[in-house]
Amino acid sequence: VRKKCGKSSICSTNVRVSLPAVCFVWQIAMIVLFGVFIRYNEEADTHWQEFRRENNISSDIENDFYFRYPSFQDVHVMIFVGFGFLMTFLKRYSFGAVGFNFLVAAFGIQWALLMQGWFHTLDPATGKILIGVENLINADFCVAGCLIAYGALLGKVSPVQLLVLTLFGVTLFAVEEYIILDLLHARDAGGSMVIHAFGGYYGLAISWVLYRPNLNLSKRLNGSVYHSDVFAMIGTLFLWMFWPSFNSAITDHGDGQHRAAINTYLALASSVLTAVGISSVTQKKGKLDMVHIQNATLAGGVAMGTAAEFMITPYGSLIVGFCCGMISTFGYVFVTPLLEKYLKLQDTCGVHNLHAVPGMLGGFIGAIVAASATEEVYSREGLINTFDFEGDFADRTVGTQGGFQAAACCVAIAFGIVGGGCVGLVLKIPIWGDPADDNCYDDEAYWEVPEDDESIPPILEYNNHMIHKLPDL
Amino acid sequence: VRKKCGKSSICSTNVRVSLPAVCFVWQIAMIVLFGVFIRYNEEADTHWQEFRRENNISSDIENDFYFRYPSFQDVHVMIFVGFGFLMTFLKRYSFGAVGFNFLVAAFGIQWALLMQGWFHTLDPATGKILIGVENLINADFCVAGCLIAYGALLGKVSPVQLLVLTLFGVTLFAVEEYIILDLLHARDAGGSMVIHAFGGYYGLAISWVLYRPNLNLSKRLNGSVYHSDVFAMIGTLFLWMFWPSFNSAITDHGDGQHRAAINTYLALASSVLTAVGISSVTQKKGKLDMVHIQNATLAGGVAMGTAAEFMITPYGSLIVGFCCGMISTFGYVFVTPLLEKYLKLQDTCGVHNLHAVPGMLGGFIGAIVAASATEEVYSREGLINTFDFEGDFADRTVGTQGGFQAAACCVAIAFGIVGGGCVGLVLKIPIWGDPADDNCYDDEAYWEVPEDDESIPPILEYNNHMIHKLPDL
Amino acid sequence: VRKKCGKSSICSTNVRVSLPAVCFVWQIAMIVLFGVFIRYNEEADTHWQEFRRENNISSDIENDFYFRYPSFQDVHVMIFVGFGFLMTFLKRYSFGAVGFNFLVAAFGIQWALLMQGWFHTLDPATGKILIGVENLINADFCVAGCLIAYGALLGKVSPVQLLVLTLFGVTLFAVEEYIILDLLHARDAGGSMVIHAFGGYYGLAISWVLYRPNLNLSKRLNGSVYHSDVFAMIGTLFLWMFWPSFNSAITDHGDGQHRAAINTYLALASSVLTAVGISSVTQKKGKLDMVHIQNATLAGGVAMGTAAEFMITPYGSLIVGFCCGMISTFGYVFVTPLLEKYLKLQDTCGVHNLHAVPGMLGGFIGAIVAASATEEVYSREGLINTFDFEGDFADRTVGTQGGFQAAACCVAIAFGIVGGGCVGLVLKIPIWGDPADDNCYDDEAYWEVPEDDESIPPILEYNNHMIHKLPDL
Repeated sequence: VRKKCGKSSICSTNVRVSLPAVCFVWQIAMIVLFGVFIRYNEEADTHWQEFRRENNISSDIENDFYFRYPSFQDVHVMIFVGFGFLMTFLKRYSFGAVGFNFLVAAFGIQWALLMQGWFHTLDPATGKILIGVENLINADFCVAGCLIAYGALLGKVSPVQLLVLTLFGVTLFAVEEYIILDLLHARDAGGSMVIHAFGGYYGLAISWVLYRPNLNLSKRLNGSVYHSDVFAMIGTLFLWMFWPSFNSAITDHGDGQHRAAINTYLALASSVLTAVGISSVTQKKGKLDMVHIQNATLAGGVAMGTAAEFMITPYGSLIVGFCCGMISTFGYVFVTPLLEKYLKLQDTCGVHNLHAVPGMLGGFIGAIVAASATEEVYSREGLINTFDFEGDFADRTVGTQGGFQAAACCVAIAFGIVGGGCVGLVLKIPIWGDPADDNCYDDEAYWEVPEDDESIPPILEYNNHMIHKLPDL
Repeated sequence: VRKKCGKSSICSTNVRVSLPAVCFVWQIAMIVLFGVFIRYNEEADTHWQEFRRENNISSDIENDFYFRYPSFQDVHVMIFVGFGFLMTFLKRYSFGAVGFNFLVAAFGIQWALLMQGWFHTLDPATGKILIGVENLINADFCVAGCLIAYGALLGKVSPVQLLVLTLFGVTLFAVEEYIILDLLHARDAGGSMVIHAFGGYYGLAISWVLYRPNLNLSKRLNGSVYHSDVFAMIGTLFLWMFWPSFNSAITDHGDGQHRAAINTYLALASSVLTAVGISSVTQKKGKLDMVHIQNATLAGGVAMGTAAEFMITPYGSLIVGFCCGMISTFGYVFVTPLLEKYLKLQDTCGVHNLHAVPGMLGGFIGAIVAASATEEVYSREGLINTFDFEGDFADRTVGTQGGFQAAACCVAIAFGIVGGGCVGLVLKIPIWGDPADDNCYDDEAYWEVPEDDESIPPILEYNNHMIHKLPDL
Repeated sequence: VRKKCGKSSICSTNVRVSLPAVCFVWQIAMIVLFGVFIRYNEEADTHWQEFRRENNISSDIENDFYFRYPSFQDVHVMIFVGFGFLMTFLKRYSFGAVGFNFLVAAFGIQWALLMQGWFHTLDPATGKILIGVENLINADFCVAGCLIAYGALLGKVSPVQLLVLTLFGVTLFAVEEYIILDLLHARDAGGSMVIHAFGGYYGLAISWVLYRPNLNLSKRLNGSVYHSDVFAMIGTLFLWMFWPSFNSAITDHGDGQHRAAINTYLALASSVLTAVGISSVTQKKGKLDMVHIQNATLAGGVAMGTAAEFMITPYGSLIVGFCCGMISTFGYVFVTPLLEKYLKLQDTCGVHNLHAVPGMLGGFIGAIVAASATEEVYSREGLINTFDFEGDFADRTVGTQGGFQAAACCVAIAFGIVGGGCVGLVLKIPIWGDPADDNCYDDEAYWEVPEDDESIPPILEYNNHMIHKLPDL
């Protein structure tokens, strides 16, 4: 009984040629480029035992694998289950949410290994990119930016558009990351700026370019049902629980990872209480809105992406979570409707409130915390380790560092907005198989959806029975 | 078509003032107290490199973070996804189950860091609580006690009541834990006594005080539907899989963690078989009951909370799981109905059978295993390490230790019952916005619940069509 | 309104005697055998501190627990949540999928500890099996073989049959594993051959013997509904994300684990793109089929089970994933229907396409990669470490090793087919309570299934209302 696609939408969403073509062309390109460029690094290579002896590493347990692999797996869960299930809240777009998230991430991590490798771990002697577990984490991080962008576009784009978005998104990410981390020498271990601010504004800019004036034709599907909201909580919770691993995954061994995990844990806890409080006070009768619980509770993790490894102090972390949980919930209640009405910005998952704004705030919080660092609190050695004041940057002061952190945040936002605008124009070309305005938020467009004959048959049967009886009257 | 709240229940469940007020007041209090008291410990502080040198720690990998962080994340999943989803089995209380679990835990872990810190890790020189990953685990443990209590009250209390329950629950927990672990010098790494027996009896006592004679007015909602039972299995499995991490998270480095994980793994496996066996034999036609599979399979983990780090032997672990899986399933079949009928005890999730009784048994099992420890089996050094026979307790014999373990179990139960009784009286004051008797187990009371227009519209449309045709007859 | 079991099927599926009997007899047998045979190994025993001193182990962190426990927990999640939820896709068999998976695994791991222990870790001096975390991982691996076999039989067998299948399956597994790993000295860390090829063919052979000519009587239930497909994605994703841990869990410390994780990560990413591409191109209108996304995306992980620890190179991993993702999807589209039509092979989950064929291919890929290993790439020491060319096998060449790897793959397949055929005959005896042909894929047979009164009552009420009105006409 569910609405079948009309003639026009059959044409427009048929990706039988374009989707396989893109998948195969890109995967083959990946194989060729990996063949030319990518090799194992010395900790993943069979020469590791020699490397150990040469570098006086006393035990296998000091292989970077054991420092980072548990965090890597947590991050991996966030990318595939966390982001994927967070977007299943729509009543009829769960396949697209979790399935296209899967596709985008699986392609993106390969391209990210190459792009980030060229910028960061290219061995000048051999021209090869040497990869290890830290590269895998960074690839997952990189793809997170594109998945955040998907959140703004959920239900309105085709899988081919998403793969194009990812190709450009990962490329932009790698460049932006190189400018921020290497040229500006800013710190951003959990990616408030590099991942969240960039990804959020990238998605918003694309969504703005792809504005659909008649999107209300699909309004009936732009909402949740009871069980889809429960599915989305799976995503929320895995993101929330593993965010301490996200922010600590690539920080310094020892105290760096330890402190980043503690700070993130606290900021997230604080976000939950203010998100609940604001959600209740802004709804009539004080009822909670699942949208806020699913999203705004995570704002503390986003906002701690830069400062988590600094000595922000435990109460500082709570304050960050407190403010960002509030701001994010207010965003969902008041700002998203205004953005749609006045800025023509359709943002399905509200990435503006969860990623763009908290990410930007996180960048500036990081700048302030960096600028106010003192040798008294950090110790001389701690200051050098934390901010990596070595080599060309040995003489940088914390004040200067703060300035560069703030500049880095602006770079991330600029890359997101400008890059997203350009990519949006590419995606506007009418060849990518995107759905018609009355066909958005509907898995029927790209998926074989099973008939829900679980509950319907007995009832229809019953009614048929009645119909057969009717003539007897 | 779903029942709307009546006039009276609208009034009573409106928490638009009280819930935000409690959230904000308590979160601000946390920030102030954290500001005064909480700092990073030496393993999470930037002075770590100096600390390493001073203490001859050869590598960053010996930071406690790397011993405990994987277990911490597993415990974290148990608290938020495990307990949260285990309670989603009710057909219309999944939002409340997973959402209020989230709220309670996020608040509770902050208060627990303070309370447990004051008792256990207060630095006498500075008056500061120094926290690291072990404190995070202990905070998660502490909040588990309150979440267990929530299980007995599921669907019958307001979020404000839950936050009050948590404030007092965490406080009682910290005192009880101090008495058991420090004064009595009992061992209870996985918390059979401290967490499960306490939490279970705490919840039961509150539920007894809040007895609702007319709860059968909400009977229609006190049950599961097909998909809600599948959601609950997510909770069950994450609890079951990660319980070895729960019981080993804070045991001794090396063999202590290793042995606790093995013992718990075995006890849990054994529980599954006896739970299935008893479930089948007590149902007509031998059909399995999801309630038993969701809950009683976990009894082995609860019961190994004390003895897991001891040399209970692998077959000893199997026996514990065997017995507790049986006892727990029998509890669900026979005891819960009797408790409700004769003791006026309404226990939504059956925490009596999963936590209170197996926790109590686990305490006594621990006492017996401790009392029967021998130097032959443990080695002299092993005995000292396992039971921490050092300092004031250097001369304690294993027999004495067994006695103190048993006493500790009684302390935990007493704290649960007496504390729960008192807190129940506080929660009985009619200002907390709890639901009316005909409005329990219903997310409508505290949540904006989406209309389920996914399946209903086409059918109603069909019927309407028939109605329009009827006059033609 | 759902179909009640007919008289004949009530009789046949009543397992009230047999299921509890099997559970209790087997669990008691496990307790007795564990009592006789199983003890902690030196890393889990209280003598660990002495062992450390005797073996000059400098820190507790070098206990094998810290090398392997995070991977173990990931594998554990794959076994219980991954395999369990992957099979929840059927509209009315989610309880059976996740519940019987739980039962089978919980029993199987106990029996596997014994069987594998007798073959591999029996201490000749004492006659005891000494267990540690590596044994737990191997037990999980062993049970994976039986769960794969369950995939072919899903919905068509009773829990008693599954327990019998597991008893024999674990036994066969342990013998086959001993021949492959010890006698042939083949390498198979992630079990392409030992786990997947064996498990796949074991299940297919059983299914072939248990062929049901009238299975189309249950056709109405052999399919998914919207939400059951989303549940299945939970299984898919946890398998996909944690497969790097699966393939690296028991490889060599250091570079071995590191490299296996990287290779598996890459092969899996590549599989996703080709599975999506083939799924789209083989469906009319280019729509994706959830069956392919849920299953074929995992083929890369299966196929890397043998070669992941070798120097297959990153692009080699991508190629393996590329090919196996394609082959697996083609299998679902074309081969499964042919197998059922011409070979009388009913394979509910398509384990032929996900496990049997990719596992077999993985075995031969491993043989080729081993045969083409060179000292130049591996270093002399690396070659010895990777292929364990020590003791009796010190003089083996890589060419010989490749031959033995290929022979090992044939052994695994032969054990699966012959063993499965024999076990199938045992399971054909009509005493095990399997469902009638018109009663398959239905949880009603073995579970107390809740009435779905969530959505149905208002509608029936409405219709009743109409019926009452009808006479008035």
